[in-house]
Amino acid sequence: MSRLLQEIRHNPLLWLLGFVPVVLVGQKVEPEAHTLLFVLSILAIVPLAALLSHATESVAARTGDTVGGLLNATLGNLTELVIALTALGAGQYMLVKASIAGAIVTNTLFMLGASFLLGGLGHHVQEYNRINARLQASLLFLATIALLIPSAVSQADFTEGAAFTRQLSVGLALLLIAAYGLGLLFSLRTHRELFASAEHAEPGEAPWPMGLAVTTLAGVTLLVALVSEVFVESVQKAAEAFGMTPAFVGFIVVALVGGAAEMASAFSGARKNRLDLSVGIALGSASQIALFVAPVLVLLSYVIGPAPMDLQFWPGAVVMILVATFTASLVTNSGRSAWFVGVLLLMVYLIFAMTLYLLPPRAH
Amino acid sequence: MSRLLQEIRHNPLLWLLGFVPVVLVGQKVEPEAHTLLFVLSILAIVPLAALLSHATESVAARTGDTVGGLLNATLGNLTELVIALTALGAGQYMLVKASIAGAIVTNTLFMLGASFLLGGLGHHVQEYNRINARLQASLLFLATIALLIPSAVSQADFTEGAAFTRQLSVGLALLLIAAYGLGLLFSLRTHRELFASAEHAEPGEAPWPMGLAVTTLAGVTLLVALVSEVFVESVQKAAEAFGMTPAFVGFIVVALVGGAAEMASAFSGARKNRLDLSVGIALGSASQIALFVAPVLVLLSYVIGPAPMDLQFWPGAVVMILVATFTASLVTNSGRSAWFVGVLLLMVYLIFAMTLYLLPPRAH
Amino acid sequence: MSRLLQEIRHNPLLWLLGFVPVVLVGQKVEPEAHTLLFVLSILAIVPLAALLSHATESVAARTGDTVGGLLNATLGNLTELVIALTALGAGQYMLVKASIAGAIVTNTLFMLGASFLLGGLGHHVQEYNRINARLQASLLFLATIALLIPSAVSQADFTEGAAFTRQLSVGLALLLIAAYGLGLLFSLRTHRELFASAEHAEPGEAPWPMGLAVTTLAGVTLLVALVSEVFVESVQKAAEAFGMTPAFVGFIVVALVGGAAEMASAFSGARKNRLDLSVGIALGSASQIALFVAPVLVLLSYVIGPAPMDLQFWPGAVVMILVATFTASLVTNSGRSAWFVGVLLLMVYLIFAMTLYLLPPRAH
Repeated sequence: MSRLLQEIRHNPLLWLLGFVPVVLVGQKVEPEAHTLLFVLSILAIVPLAALLSHATESVAARTGDTVGGLLNATLGNLTELVIALTALGAGQYMLVKASIAGAIVTNTLFMLGASFLLGGLGHHVQEYNRINARLQASLLFLATIALLIPSAVSQADFTEGAAFTRQLSVGLALLLIAAYGLGLLFSLRTHRELFASAEHAEPGEAPWPMGLAVTTLAGVTLLVALVSEVFVESVQKAAEAFGMTPAFVGFIVVALVGGAAEMASAFSGARKNRLDLSVGIALGSASQIALFVAPVLVLLSYVIGPAPMDLQFWPGAVVMILVATFTASLVTNSGRSAWFVGVLLLMVYLIFAMTLYLLPPRAH
Repeated sequence: MSRLLQEIRHNPLLWLLGFVPVVLVGQKVEPEAHTLLFVLSILAIVPLAALLSHATESVAARTGDTVGGLLNATLGNLTELVIALTALGAGQYMLVKASIAGAIVTNTLFMLGASFLLGGLGHHVQEYNRINARLQASLLFLATIALLIPSAVSQADFTEGAAFTRQLSVGLALLLIAAYGLGLLFSLRTHRELFASAEHAEPGEAPWPMGLAVTTLAGVTLLVALVSEVFVESVQKAAEAFGMTPAFVGFIVVALVGGAAEMASAFSGARKNRLDLSVGIALGSASQIALFVAPVLVLLSYVIGPAPMDLQFWPGAVVMILVATFTASLVTNSGRSAWFVGVLLLMVYLIFAMTLYLLPPRAH
Repeated sequence: MSRLLQEIRHNPLLWLLGFVPVVLVGQKVEPEAHTLLFVLSILAIVPLAALLSHATESVAARTGDTVGGLLNATLGNLTELVIALTALGAGQYMLVKASIAGAIVTNTLFMLGASFLLGGLGHHVQEYNRINARLQASLLFLATIALLIPSAVSQADFTEGAAFTRQLSVGLALLLIAAYGLGLLFSLRTHRELFASAEHAEPGEAPWPMGLAVTTLAGVTLLVALVSEVFVESVQKAAEAFGMTPAFVGFIVVALVGGAAEMASAFSGARKNRLDLSVGIALGSASQIALFVAPVLVLLSYVIGPAPMDLQFWPGAVVMILVATFTASLVTNSGRSAWFVGVLLLMVYLIFAMTLYLLPPRAH
């Protein structure tokens, strides 16, 4: 426990933990102060996500390469999963889908782009192991096809539409989870030597002891769930107050909040010329959300949600995911990077953000 | 002739030839037993296609490299051509188009994917000459554009639509055949040294004597035509009986039946670590259907069919061909393969098959 | 001045300058002879564009590498810019957009394809520096996304559409100009060593003296503006007389006329086995139009035009730009070329030209 306090004292990001009790008390006292609660819940989620991420990696580091890799691969986006589950329970399918699509786009364009830019400002040309980038890009590409085909095929109006979409979504969800599992088998077991340099944990940071890590994992997950509830309840009204469209909030704000901790690691890796780490975090996280978090949410919606959720996304979101995946696959193809590659990725992200910001609310 | 019988005795696939007389007699006796006739005609076409394929290769092997290459390139998909011509004569344009699109998708995803998977199960990493893969992928890409542009451009409703589509289809058909011919000139004549290792025939199998090969070619083509007639007549009703959508039958069933013989060769090549062969058969066959069989069918529809056939495909089919071509081009870009690459291709194929299987009949 | 006359005497293309006074007088005498004026104005623009191009390069050569590179990058498509500005002033937004889209497509497919084909007829395999090709293809790709996203996102009907599109277009225009500027910073300054062999000017041609170059630049720009006015006024009616659709004229005819001078340089480079030059001109010119000329026109439309112009293109044009960009990026990926690569690019161009030629006028 003293280890945890010491960590908090040395990491300014974790000082934001003070907002956790504030937001929970705030919701009891002023449940109608949506804008304030929205801001407070964002400030509270960021440090919790950082703790969660560190705890997961510590458990992973203590359990050996294969089990650890598996843990990282399933719990690495626990924050996003908990936020999405809360929204799912509240029946806010639009927000769930927007945050899934937004997380994929933000990780592949913003996190990767900013890593390339930050790294490129300090180093003339950077090289990295492109095998891992190609695997993740391929998985992302598969998920994109799974999102694209149903809408492409079922253009015409037809009454059986809903049943078709629901059946297909369950089938696709199972298929994506299987592909994700086989991808893990490939990269952690049968062809692990190809992925050698793409290790996830930073060597500088010592992992926590097992007991502390597991306790933190459990406790913090609970706190994220509590704060997420405030966040999900307040986000719609707060967005209106800020003049932001719901699409912009789901795509951009939620994704940036949920991924803040991972971004910190990715950017720090890039600055230290360890682009393998940055590319691995950015694309690994994106493919995990597309092939694990999203399908799990579809399946869980049969248990938790007020009604089943399907995998059919708003066409604009599908196009954005498609473009993001394709762009990431294009720029990581060479295994080399310079600052301008980062600029290109960020520009694509800016085009998306600008479009979503200006989009009239009714249109999507 | 004894050579032919000897071949049949040693190849269990050819024992299915016994179904050829059964299906032809069956149609006379029980013309309304659609489901039975459908199954029997499938069982009869598979061995005929294998014989046809071997006869074509034998003639090709006896006539020297260039003429042989040309023969393989024009008669390599004779089975698919005969089936499609039968459907064309019966005015079943939907089935013709579905089987063209399905053959392209099945060859690029299923045949290639299963080859990579089967090869990868026995060999850690396999390498192959990617020059040929790139040529075929480029040709396929060109054909995809030819299928995509007309529908993309003529979105709006307009009355001159039919005439426009018909004129454009003839123009595109001529252009694709020209591109295919120039591609042969490039790979068989001016730059043949680049394609050295991508030879088509297996060295182990001795080609038949010329007389036997030509006789088999002629006789078996006739038999395929007769059996195809039964197949085309029974397929619609049989599909309903099996609960399969027409789209699924055209795309998946017809394509698997027509390509069974080539698949056997491709898979055997992959297992023997001769991926050049597998990739050459899979992508070569796909590009041949897209740039030769499909355009020839459009031109022949002015002679044979009840009305001219155009090249405008159902949008869902265009998207599937586009995705299949793009996926094949992506995975063959590196000239290396492992089992997971095969899994990815098969997963994309499964997404398509699942979507088509679940698709309500009215929707396409 | 005698230098200019000498140049004209030795370059048969410049003999066409005789048509400049003819077309200007013709317009006064026979303002209704649209077809004749259209043909004359084309014959007059081609040599003016060649002079303009040579004058720009001469100024660039005299002002040092960085300033020169910047000049080439901003004035390299002066002819296209002047024609588009004339059409903008006349409120012909359709023609402006068609000529922008057409210039991108013509440069990436026809100019690049014909260069590869001409080069490949004389040389078995040609190599070139693909770094520059990749930069230009990436910039083009970014511009394509900027054209694609607004239409993809705003599919639904909604009343605020016009305001949204206009705001977004200004934002995107500023973003594209910024990307273009950063691209110049990258290729001319921070990473110039990577682009070493992709120089623009031919070593054989001596640059003009500064005075002559600047005078020619100013005088010829004025002449282009005057002739463009005749061209823009006559093009619509002439197209009808020739039986060409407006889409075909804007896309194909205007683009070929405006780019004739650059094509001459690109083709001559390819024949001399200097493909770096050809690829640089073709893709550089395309990305300049997409990221500099088009955004500048959007911004200038607030000053010059009768109403603001947006960046929303006809869906068919977006698909063509997308396909052209993707094709160019695919074929330049390897840095090697043979004649068949040129054939493939030209075939894609032919598909577009044929579709636009046959397209009924109402449909676009």
